[in-house]
Amino acid sequence: MESFAEIDSLSVFSADKMKKNNIFATKRFFCDVYCFEPGQAQEPHAHVGSDKLYLVVDGLARIRIGDEERDSGPGAAVLAPAGVQHGVVNPGPGRLRLLVVMAPPPAT
Amino acid sequence: MESFAEIDSLSVFSADKMKKNNIFATKRFFCDVYCFEPGQAQEPHAHVGSDKLYLVVDGLARIRIGDEERDSGPGAAVLAPAGVQHGVVNPGPGRLRLLVVMAPPPAT
Repeated sequence: MESFAEIDSLSVFSADKMKKNNIFATKRFFCDVYCFEPGQAQEPHAHVGSDKLYLVVDGLARIRIGDEERDSGPGAAVLAPAGVQHGVVNPGPGRLRLLVVMAPPPAT
Repeated sequence: MESFAEIDSLSVFSADKMKKNNIFATKRFFCDVYCFEPGQAQEPHAHVGSDKLYLVVDGLARIRIGDEERDSGPGAAVLAPAGVQHGVVNPGPGRLRLLVVMAPPPAT
């Protein structure tokens, strides 16, 4: 795996649904850039043994962690601890990109 | 621990040396924002059992991974795999902020 990457060059959107683009994957974590067109979402879900980190690159992210929901913009960092329900919606009007790190990667 | 944080409000610089500011810490990873004044550095070092991710928030980062050194700006993502020497210098002229994720956190 290359050690140096550019988020912009890996950011691919899809008209069908929110698109996950991998940047790095090791046995200890993965790092993706998630690309959301306006209105696209990641439905609430939880991971038993992995913590997830969201970083808002650009756009607006409506992120729910457990019972708390907030609209977050660039520079926000959000933690979804293992076992806690979490989900994301892009309320628009622009595109949304999130850097997502999960440690460890979910078992496959 | 709060689930929602703002990188800007946690970014503290120090005239003495590069400053690490913690954002999130779990048993599976930590996420810090490292703040470098021009000329400040993190000397090359390695972690036996942890992978590290650098994300350039703003400024210019001269990052060495093993034998490869590159100058990276905002939007760059850089992987330092476990066991591989890595270090950072801020060549200036501006300040540098790096988001740093390490998984798992180093044993203390």
